Amino acid sequence: MARMKAAIFVEPGRIVLDEKPIPDVGPLDALVRITTTTICGTDVHILKGEYPVAKGLTIGHEPVGIIEKLGSAVTGFTEGQRVIAGAITPSGHSFACLCGCGSQDGAGTKHGFKAMGGWKFGNTIDGTQAEYVLVPDALANLAPVPEGLSDEEVLMCPDIMSTGFSGAESGAVQIGDTVAVFALGPIGLCAVAGARLKGATRIIGVDTVPERLAIAAALGCNHVVDFKKGDVVDQIMAITDGRGVDVSIEALGTQGTFEAALRVLRPGGTLSSLGVYSSDLTIPLGAFSAGLGDNKIVTTLCPGGKERMRRLMEVIATGRVDLKPLVTHRFKLDDIEAAYDLFSHQRDGVLKVAITP
Amino acid sequence: MARMKAAIFVEPGRIVLDEKPIPDVGPLDALVRITTTTICGTDVHILKGEYPVAKGLTIGHEPVGIIEKLGSAVTGFTEGQRVIAGAITPSGHSFACLCGCGSQDGAGTKHGFKAMGGWKFGNTIDGTQAEYVLVPDALANLAPVPEGLSDEEVLMCPDIMSTGFSGAESGAVQIGDTVAVFALGPIGLCAVAGARLKGATRIIGVDTVPERLAIAAALGCNHVVDFKKGDVVDQIMAITDGRGVDVSIEALGTQGTFEAALRVLRPGGTLSSLGVYSSDLTIPLGAFSAGLGDNKIVTTLCPGGKERMRRLMEVIATGRVDLKPLVTHRFKLDDIEAAYDLFSHQRDGVLKVAITP
Amino acid sequence: MARMKAAIFVEPGRIVLDEKPIPDVGPLDALVRITTTTICGTDVHILKGEYPVAKGLTIGHEPVGIIEKLGSAVTGFTEGQRVIAGAITPSGHSFACLCGCGSQDGAGTKHGFKAMGGWKFGNTIDGTQAEYVLVPDALANLAPVPEGLSDEEVLMCPDIMSTGFSGAESGAVQIGDTVAVFALGPIGLCAVAGARLKGATRIIGVDTVPERLAIAAALGCNHVVDFKKGDVVDQIMAITDGRGVDVSIEALGTQGTFEAALRVLRPGGTLSSLGVYSSDLTIPLGAFSAGLGDNKIVTTLCPGGKERMRRLMEVIATGRVDLKPLVTHRFKLDDIEAAYDLFSHQRDGVLKVAITP
Amino acid sequence: MARMKAAIFVEPGRIVLDEKPIPDVGPLDALVRITTTTICGTDVHILKGEYPVAKGLTIGHEPVGIIEKLGSAVTGFTEGQRVIAGAITPSGHSFACLCGCGSQDGAGTKHGFKAMGGWKFGNTIDGTQAEYVLVPDALANLAPVPEGLSDEEVLMCPDIMSTGFSGAESGAVQIGDTVAVFALGPIGLCAVAGARLKGATRIIGVDTVPERLAIAAALGCNHVVDFKKGDVVDQIMAITDGRGVDVSIEALGTQGTFEAALRVLRPGGTLSSLGVYSSDLTIPLGAFSAGLGDNKIVTTLCPGGKERMRRLMEVIATGRVDLKPLVTHRFKLDDIEAAYDLFSHQRDGVLKVAITP
Repeated sequence: MARMKAAIFVEPGRIVLDEKPIPDVGPLDALVRITTTTICGTDVHILKGEYPVAKGLTIGHEPVGIIEKLGSAVTGFTEGQRVIAGAITPSGHSFACLCGCGSQDGAGTKHGFKAMGGWKFGNTIDGTQAEYVLVPDALANLAPVPEGLSDEEVLMCPDIMSTGFSGAESGAVQIGDTVAVFALGPIGLCAVAGARLKGATRIIGVDTVPERLAIAAALGCNHVVDFKKGDVVDQIMAITDGRGVDVSIEALGTQGTFEAALRVLRPGGTLSSLGVYSSDLTIPLGAFSAGLGDNKIVTTLCPGGKERMRRLMEVIATGRVDLKPLVTHRFKLDDIEAAYDLFSHQRDGVLKVAITP
Repeated sequence: MARMKAAIFVEPGRIVLDEKPIPDVGPLDALVRITTTTICGTDVHILKGEYPVAKGLTIGHEPVGIIEKLGSAVTGFTEGQRVIAGAITPSGHSFACLCGCGSQDGAGTKHGFKAMGGWKFGNTIDGTQAEYVLVPDALANLAPVPEGLSDEEVLMCPDIMSTGFSGAESGAVQIGDTVAVFALGPIGLCAVAGARLKGATRIIGVDTVPERLAIAAALGCNHVVDFKKGDVVDQIMAITDGRGVDVSIEALGTQGTFEAALRVLRPGGTLSSLGVYSSDLTIPLGAFSAGLGDNKIVTTLCPGGKERMRRLMEVIATGRVDLKPLVTHRFKLDDIEAAYDLFSHQRDGVLKVAITP
Repeated sequence: MARMKAAIFVEPGRIVLDEKPIPDVGPLDALVRITTTTICGTDVHILKGEYPVAKGLTIGHEPVGIIEKLGSAVTGFTEGQRVIAGAITPSGHSFACLCGCGSQDGAGTKHGFKAMGGWKFGNTIDGTQAEYVLVPDALANLAPVPEGLSDEEVLMCPDIMSTGFSGAESGAVQIGDTVAVFALGPIGLCAVAGARLKGATRIIGVDTVPERLAIAAALGCNHVVDFKKGDVVDQIMAITDGRGVDVSIEALGTQGTFEAALRVLRPGGTLSSLGVYSSDLTIPLGAFSAGLGDNKIVTTLCPGGKERMRRLMEVIATGRVDLKPLVTHRFKLDDIEAAYDLFSHQRDGVLKVAITP
Repeated sequence: MARMKAAIFVEPGRIVLDEKPIPDVGPLDALVRITTTTICGTDVHILKGEYPVAKGLTIGHEPVGIIEKLGSAVTGFTEGQRVIAGAITPSGHSFACLCGCGSQDGAGTKHGFKAMGGWKFGNTIDGTQAEYVLVPDALANLAPVPEGLSDEEVLMCPDIMSTGFSGAESGAVQIGDTVAVFALGPIGLCAVAGARLKGATRIIGVDTVPERLAIAAALGCNHVVDFKKGDVVDQIMAITDGRGVDVSIEALGTQGTFEAALRVLRPGGTLSSLGVYSSDLTIPLGAFSAGLGDNKIVTTLCPGGKERMRRLMEVIATGRVDLKPLVTHRFKLDDIEAAYDLFSHQRDGVLKVAITP
């Protein structure tokens, strides 16, 4: 049985490059040879033991590659075709999918905590930081890459671009809206780009790292707020003449950003939450207007599926958004442990790393 | 200057019937002679000093009456006409109104807490527990009562019917949805009726008072859950075969109901919150799926304005919903202090009281 | 190779019962043994040669039956299970499906006319008026029948209930709306039921057959308008005090009903069109307000998929709508030619026929 | 009584500059001294007698000016303030406004044809091509101009920018959509800008005038189609690889553009119609997929009100769209007859003219 290299979760603190068999291809699957992948903040949560996955699992959920082999029931694609797949791989045929909630495809009860059922790669099945990955429900998930786009140009589509844009989409940003984005890591930066694409006229970005504030301005922020230079809520209320924002997007996953995102909302405004939280949240009574402010709190898990990927690649192909500045470092798969080391410590101004087998 | 009787907030613990001048009518106002009004749970919060209003203010926000005098700029109505007005009186011409958020008309910043700007009667201006009330922005707020409807039949329209229905509307209940309603006081009962009216097929009501559970069943609950007979979340998950509910409606304003309403949601489901909270809320990490469950939390303040009132009276007039069982007690305005005593102590199975000057 | 009986299109004017092989089961398919099916108005169009299908095709698109054999890639179901499938069988995995437009799954260009891509049974593949039918994309389309529901109770779900309800859904009927439904055949009657389920308070049904007007009243019509007793538009404007209707639902497919449905709309109202037209339509300038009336014209093809079927069966199971009166006649499959004769001539007050192999 | 100059409709073929009294200010009105206004295509319809207005009426519906006098019930503004008002002036307090359909405020029955009730300036009351104009329902309609914006920069907001953008908004353009805009006059050009602002990635503009095609490209068109260089539908289907467009925007008001806009739609796509038609329309059966294509036809009348104007001026103030190239000619009010002559004959590459008293 042929073998391949893969970045494998061994135990909290250890993701190592090892070998495992190239998987068999079931009737609904496609085997994709990875040409580029990347590391996500969620992978760091896994590394640190903050998010539990099975020992021995291959990590990673952002694939760019070439179809090596199609399952027997998979039509409409050809082996050798360049494709991506979303981080979330909806089957298309589940009740959740047919109910318009594909990201939750297969999600179990809320009781037992885990609701993010549609996230399979590097979570419930082997992931993309490997030489090959098996794409489940390939009919719904393989998205051909348009000619002329490089691997790095589409590398953000599977996760951070889809997630960041969904922050603006779920927040229902309208033409003329004022939007605040809390935390300008890769997802926050994509949320800025998404808010701009949806017609926001004033976009306020909140962070403190100068490089991130600079990229945010390039992607569409009219105002950047440094949370170290004064109370964030005060600064945003001043920028908006006391009116507050129409939509705030939380892109970090902490009590501080969540709470500030709620406090700056105008009456009737929406908090669109993208962050992965790691502890209970508090909603202060005043920030919530005692429940009488006509506010919404909306959470979104990265939308996937081939149509979503097609649209995001269109955004890149037509030049509407340029996310190349987000790829700051490049590693071979053989050096992925060094990539984890750099990325998990956020050294050297890293935003995203490109990993090539 | 002619004088009238009015129920006036004196200090925490004391709302008394007293006299004050019948108000002058400004160009945009209408003076309405009250024929029936009622007491709301919020008035009890005011009585107890839990919600602050100015001393000397007339309380009450649910008017049924007859137009006594129209302001000079108010056309399209006639003196002597029977009307109601919503508890919330949007001007129609504010930025909030023109932005689709009339209930927040005039709402100030979130910083200083109070966002429920559209609520004026018995909050920022004199209310309806009096012989006369001045309706502001009368052009937008006077709603003629269709012939054949009694005062008591339309008495629920200004507040609890509008609020309860909005729980189902803001939750975007669809045909075939399963909906859970937490707490079956007057607003929760109207939320049950609203969910049914929007096409929910399974409605689960949660309370413990037998009379309320019985009315809930009459208004459309297929299942009633007594929270004293076991864990509410467990009971609802059992009823739904572990699937959870599409929409949960919180109609009380406590941590317990809020949290249970969140826990029973299916992935992708919506918590529609109607309660007035009196302390900070906690969102448990698991109940919130760490932010990855594609869930929404939506709050709604009672929609007002004459078109809303027209539609609600249509619901009554066409017999689609019968809310008469909600009026359990009747008092003259002269006896309003006794009515407050009964209502605030929830004695004698009281749901709503009708007050007639 | 085992053979089965099937109603086959031979040529315009002739659908005959004949034999053909029981089909082979592909990896994504399920073979269902039909226990009950029915004839649709569209089948009569096919019979008359007004809608073209291939010679030799089995007709029919409304299956109730038992899973005989599952394809190799189909999991989550068991052979012997009682199921229905929608008339439209979205794959779940097409671009159209993933774009929220499953009924158009596989639809070709508009240029060459045919856009109703999701309709396959009895249109592009063999249909349900047979002893067996092959359900394509079974993972997305097999819907288990809840215990306690008879074949006839769920027989309307695959097509007319789904189509009729979608008229109200696509029209975005709100609580308190006035809705007019043009033509009260099986689909129009289901549109009445759907409008009521969505919260319409005034429903006006238009037809002339007394039995249909009577069933319409039972399903929720407050007003019935006989088009032989005066101009329909005049009658509806009188009922609405000159205001017009919020939503009109066209359920026949003729210029007359389409045009009247447009004329009775209030400014800002929506025409929800369900009919299958057979010639060009004219939009009169005045009825269209020269394009300035903020009106919508929305068309909908019967929504399918197992989640849709689950919800519709919930509506039946919870007793919210009773469609049993729509089944007026019963035939054995062996007598299907007689059934076509009765149904195509609309004799004997026929609404729907139940066909049992 | 003081008098002012005004462009007055005398009879078909004649709009002349004449004198009439400066109007009295009612309690809900504001008198605005016009500093800049313009001529719209609709005014040319009036000039030609194609759209009927009362003899003696002042024409024009696009005001930029200074508040001269406020009505007694109008608060929140100051005399001397620079303002604009929308072409459509919703009262805010009508049933239509409170139902979310402000552009139809006051609209009468469809029977008698005229549904565009919210359009008052130069239609049912005196318009803006004068030294002064009376703004009705001033509380809802006066929109202060932000500092730093010139008259010409905000001159497009009252009508063509609001109308053009609404084409994209009513069409519900999504990120990644392909949009075709039919006719690139001022409104079509604004529709292009609106589609881009809403996230369309591919925008196809259809016209034949080279200057217009050039401005369209500058505003966001990726493709321009010259209808004189081949069949428009064929060209667009080729650009979209046979897929069709997600949204088509009709911006002329003819059978040809309407029909082509319908034919290029993908299954499930939306035709957003902005044009003012002058004769009945035909919907070809095939273009309409016999009613089975899940298509929508949506019409929109220019949204007005001060919140809409505030948002549009924000778009200009933040530099997201630059409409200055649309003002191609300038005239004094004294020369407005010459301006009509130029504009009605579309001479000299005219797009919009600025008229200054």
